[in-house]
Amino acid sequence: MGKKIVIVGGVAGGASTAARLRRLDEEAEIIIMEKGDHISFANCGLPYHIGGVIKEREKLLVQTPESMEARFNIDVRVRNEVVRIDRDKKEIKVRDLNKNEIYCESYDFLILSPGAEPIKPPIDGVDFPNVFTLRNIPDTDNINEFISKNNPDRAVVVGGGFIGLEMAENLQERGLKVSLVEMAPQVMGNMDYEMAAMIHNHLREQGIDLHLNDGIASVNRKGGKTVVVLQSGREIETDLVIMAIGVRPSTKLAREAGLEIGESGGIKVNEYLQTSDRYIYAIGDAIEVIHLVTGQSVLIPLAGPANKQGRIVANIISGKSDKYKGTQGTAVARVFNLTVASTGASEKLLKKAGRDYLVSYTVSKNHAGYYPGAKPMTIKLLFTPDRGVVLGAQIVGYEGVDKRIDLLATAVRHEMTVYDLQELELAYAPPFGSAKDPVNMAGYTASNILDGLVEVVYWDDINNLDKNTILLDVREEVETQIGSINGSVNIPLNSLRERLDELDKDKDIIVYCAMGLRGYIGYRILKQHGFKKVKNLSGGYKLYKAVQD
Amino acid sequence: MGKKIVIVGGVAGGASTAARLRRLDEEAEIIIMEKGDHISFANCGLPYHIGGVIKEREKLLVQTPESMEARFNIDVRVRNEVVRIDRDKKEIKVRDLNKNEIYCESYDFLILSPGAEPIKPPIDGVDFPNVFTLRNIPDTDNINEFISKNNPDRAVVVGGGFIGLEMAENLQERGLKVSLVEMAPQVMGNMDYEMAAMIHNHLREQGIDLHLNDGIASVNRKGGKTVVVLQSGREIETDLVIMAIGVRPSTKLAREAGLEIGESGGIKVNEYLQTSDRYIYAIGDAIEVIHLVTGQSVLIPLAGPANKQGRIVANIISGKSDKYKGTQGTAVARVFNLTVASTGASEKLLKKAGRDYLVSYTVSKNHAGYYPGAKPMTIKLLFTPDRGVVLGAQIVGYEGVDKRIDLLATAVRHEMTVYDLQELELAYAPPFGSAKDPVNMAGYTASNILDGLVEVVYWDDINNLDKNTILLDVREEVETQIGSINGSVNIPLNSLRERLDELDKDKDIIVYCAMGLRGYIGYRILKQHGFKKVKNLSGGYKLYKAVQD
Ligand SMILES: Cc1cc2nc3c(=O)[nH]c(=O)nc-3n(C[C@H](O)[C@H](O)[C@H](O)COP(=O)(O)OP(=O)(O)OC[C@H]3O[C@@H](n4cnc5c(N)ncnc54)[C@H](O)[C@@H]3O)c2cc1C
Ligand SMILES: Cc1cc2nc3c(=O)[nH]c(=O)nc-3n(C[C@H](O)[C@H](O)[C@H](O)COP(=O)(O)OP(=O)(O)OC[C@H]3O[C@@H](n4cnc5c(N)ncnc54)[C@H](O)[C@@H]3O)c2cc1C
Ligand SMILES: CC(C)(COP(=O)(O)OP(=O)(O)OC[C@H]1O[C@@H](n2cnc3c(N)ncnc32)[C@H](O)[C@@H]1OP(=O)(O)O)[C@@H](O)C(=O)NCCC(=O)NCCS
Ligand SMILES: CC(C)(COP(=O)(O)OP(=O)(O)OC[C@H]1O[C@@H](n2cnc3c(N)ncnc32)[C@H](O)[C@@H]1OP(=O)(O)O)[C@@H](O)C(=O)NCCC(=O)NCCS
Repeated sequence: MGKKIVIVGGVAGGASTAARLRRLDEEAEIIIMEKGDHISFANCGLPYHIGGVIKEREKLLVQTPESMEARFNIDVRVRNEVVRIDRDKKEIKVRDLNKNEIYCESYDFLILSPGAEPIKPPIDGVDFPNVFTLRNIPDTDNINEFISKNNPDRAVVVGGGFIGLEMAENLQERGLKVSLVEMAPQVMGNMDYEMAAMIHNHLREQGIDLHLNDGIASVNRKGGKTVVVLQSGREIETDLVIMAIGVRPSTKLAREAGLEIGESGGIKVNEYLQTSDRYIYAIGDAIEVIHLVTGQSVLIPLAGPANKQGRIVANIISGKSDKYKGTQGTAVARVFNLTVASTGASEKLLKKAGRDYLVSYTVSKNHAGYYPGAKPMTIKLLFTPDRGVVLGAQIVGYEGVDKRIDLLATAVRHEMTVYDLQELELAYAPPFGSAKDPVNMAGYTASNILDGLVEVVYWDDINNLDKNTILLDVREEVETQIGSINGSVNIPLNSLRERLDELDKDKDIIVYCAMGLRGYIGYRILKQHGFKKVKNLSGGYKLYKAVQD
Repeated sequence: MGKKIVIVGGVAGGASTAARLRRLDEEAEIIIMEKGDHISFANCGLPYHIGGVIKEREKLLVQTPESMEARFNIDVRVRNEVVRIDRDKKEIKVRDLNKNEIYCESYDFLILSPGAEPIKPPIDGVDFPNVFTLRNIPDTDNINEFISKNNPDRAVVVGGGFIGLEMAENLQERGLKVSLVEMAPQVMGNMDYEMAAMIHNHLREQGIDLHLNDGIASVNRKGGKTVVVLQSGREIETDLVIMAIGVRPSTKLAREAGLEIGESGGIKVNEYLQTSDRYIYAIGDAIEVIHLVTGQSVLIPLAGPANKQGRIVANIISGKSDKYKGTQGTAVARVFNLTVASTGASEKLLKKAGRDYLVSYTVSKNHAGYYPGAKPMTIKLLFTPDRGVVLGAQIVGYEGVDKRIDLLATAVRHEMTVYDLQELELAYAPPFGSAKDPVNMAGYTASNILDGLVEVVYWDDINNLDKNTILLDVREEVETQIGSINGSVNIPLNSLRERLDELDKDKDIIVYCAMGLRGYIGYRILKQHGFKKVKNLSGGYKLYKAVQD
């Protein structure tokens, strides 16, 4: 008989471990303990099932206990909750939720993939029957049932992370009027403020009632109606509330067994995904990971890492050398018509980690501008000031954002520089890209900063300028009709060379255009004609404006 | 006064050089000599303008001489053909095509970006007025005018490269019935045969009258009709013919000036893009490049490399250190509903170069299968047998192919291994990807081969099997209705463990399923139960079938 391996949790991390284990080892005894009714379901699809985008509920079940048993000869025990680990005996206690009985099961290796739980803040009304969280199929069924039965008009989504935003979109899709409440000044905490600002504008355009800088204080009932009360005192009448303020790693079992818990609150593991007990491994949302860029211990609850860790643990337990090198937090979400994505470290994170970095913004079309349907995406690139190593990237746009974030994620993982980005030879045909892809363009623009070919200022510098600074708008005159920065002088780029004498060579000059490209060309012209104190507004008026709106 | 730089050719390479040069150097005198009427036009958009997809002709003009002069202070001379280079004097002779006069122009540096010319085979009828090639705007105008005037019903496109295929699609879009004639056994010479086979099937499904293995012999007139005669003797009646059998680098000028020409027929340059004359640089379709993977000298006429080389030459001439590291041939094309892409070396190319390699096929959906609209893509991965360094990749699929080829192109350029592909942390949300992206999956499957976890056979091994070999089909019984390999035994994967005794442990067994995944699992089961001579069919029945069709 082979090793006996017990896995706690049968979804992303757990099921992946089990499948790979079996492929590596026909002899092993493999048991999945899952307290819920389902294994191997598509957590990430739940919001879209509520929105009616994924119509059939069965589609959410990637594997069933039966299929997992038939294909992988795995002993799958749903409605079996592991309640205790006895490390000395290498035994667990399991509650069979059907019979409400507790039994013991021994293990050679134990793998914890218990995931995370939605955070429910300790506020009044959080347990009202129309206040929901979303983690699994029963949660989804509850929300669906509530909507079908009560035909509600209004929803409040609390929390502007990706689950909150997906829920906002899908509830609106389902016909509800949605308010989104976020305590922070911005949605999508993985992005920086100015990038999130574009999302805020889009949410408002889509008719979402957006409340930033305002947390939830309580849920009340007033005259038969549900009212969400915010910390500011503002009240929002609603029919249902979705709490999506984040998740907390499920560490109870590990904690009670005396396994080491990291500073961030996740189960601590080494690079072999081994806990402080060498026979117990842990993976997925429950663990603390090393941030690939900052080296800090963090929680990054995402499906890609969970699945990958599951496979790595299976390798390790089967004696195949492998290790987990860290998580970089590559993420993407659709937010109505927008696609929003990030990878690596944000500016916020780099600041917190005390790291030096430079920033560059570019705006590029997803494919050749002359081919119908081209749409712009704004890329924020973060890189080291010495060699230009890519530290992180954020993109807000439409089609093709996922492609560019994946390329930049690969650059981050392989410590490529902005010079490497210039050289990437990417596929180009009119429907798919440009001869200079947005990623090449981000590389060009960033390396120009590094090489000292241009000096830049940023959107947040503009409001703190010395009042003698000249704000030089090099857009065409017609473009200024959509607005410009207060106090600008307009000299369109194409006439700049002839009109240089209108500008004072000794003054500070900030050049800007719509997106940064013409401003850069303007900078090059001015600099080479003896203007000493010139800077270009990175990201241009478009980004500046997005933050003001 | 600064350096005087003359650029021959004002489109992809030439215009890029000029723009970057000016940004780096306000002082330089920069002249673009362009024999045609237009600079900086979108060659790649021409087929789509003929198809009516790009409606406005002006969209094809990315820059005009006027805009280039206004923005970049560049002396743009259209209808000026450089006819001779006098290297000793550092002078060129130019024919002003308006005045039909020849004049001289001196240079400090000369940059050749004359592109390539469509090959016209020396056959009868090739100069008929209804036989066209497509390279520039006048060519496009001619074709458009012919179609508008004559309202033709039928077209023959000769050549199945990407321009030929794009023309076939766009002419059909325009309402013509199209025959495609290709001398080779396959279209898209950059792909391997089995991958092209999927394109053949799709072309036929779309109603293209496809003739492979059959070159054009002549174009005749018979009773007032145009007839294309093939080498096989077959005749195709048509109203117009598009010759798209490839391009030849424009080297006349360089050749006559005694510049070194490479074995492949392109202008020879070093890694600084310098010709055998240190004051003359050359870029774009006219040059021979080093293939990044094989190290061989090759012609790769693509817009991305031309644009990048233009920028690099500008850097070098301005004294900024830079060099060109080689071309890998990353390309993508839409072929009706398909997207077809490749990067790095094909199997053909590796064979020719005498390189060792392994092959792996995977079929993955572009995004989560449970999210509506998921579509499969077939990935062929080529990698070294020692460390698994990625040498090349080819993909045929629908949406999301361009994203994966770009990731694999980045892997090729950075000499990543198939193990690196496993670890890439790519963005996942249901509309965009999977927790295990197709690229991760390609990495898993390839590394399983490298690690000896599975042995594989390929589609072209099947017809040469020893007749004692067991062909074990592990698909579900219903799936066998769409066909199976002759002489197969069907034992569905999920009952394989119970039915092992139906198989002979000492015989050779080839396991297969639809795409390779279940075959692999079947292999793992058999191998670990004492079956010694098992192999899995890489790519499964789907790929095998595509080649037979
Ligand atoms: C609505 C939603 C949308 C999401 N969208 C995305 C997305 O688009 N992209 C992305 O990357 N990620 C997304 N995620 C996150 C992703 O689903 C998780 O990162 C991933 O599922 C984590 O895998 P895991 O194995 O750690 O935990 P889970 O997949 O949550 O599995 C843990 C399982 O363990 C069980 N369990 C816990 N304790 C016990 C116990 N004591 N005994 C027995 N069983 C136990 C639980 O019941 C649970 O089923 C989303 C999550 C949700 C909820
Ligand atoms: C129909 C079509 C579709 C294409 N689609 C794609 C695609 O989807 N993706 C892709 O990557 N590539 C594509 N290409 C290829 C791409 O356009 C070329 O690789 C690229 O334009 C090469 O740039 P170049 O500067 O070398 O040559 P060109 O862009 O061709 O420019 C050369 C110019 O030099 C001029 N010239 C030549 N000799 C002289 C002389 N003696 N004096 C003055 N002027 C001269 C010519 O008139 C010409 O305008 C396509 C090409 C065509 C024709
Ligand atoms: C489905 C699930 C059980 C994992 O099962 P799995 O068998 O490891 O994963 P897949 O079905 O994706 O198959 C991957 C395997 O097939 C192999 N494979 C894929 N295509 C192949 C092909 N064409 N030929 C040969 N092998 C192939 C891969 O190499 C890999 O095997 P390996 O790990 O031994 O190398 C698990 O991922 C799961 O439960 N998912 C749903 C839950 C979830 O992830 N939720 C969060 C996201 S919504
Ligand atoms: C358009 C053309 C003239 C090139 O002009 P270009 O100015 O070099 O190219 P782009 O307009 O793409 O601009 C790129 C520059 O803008 C900069 N840039 C782009 N976005 C920027 C931003 N937001 N902020 C600052 N700089 C930016 C880049 O860094 C780059 O400058 P650099 O080369 O000095 O680093 C040339 O590519 C061309 O003729 N194209 C059409 C022909 C062709 O390519 N045909 C084949 C394909 S169809």
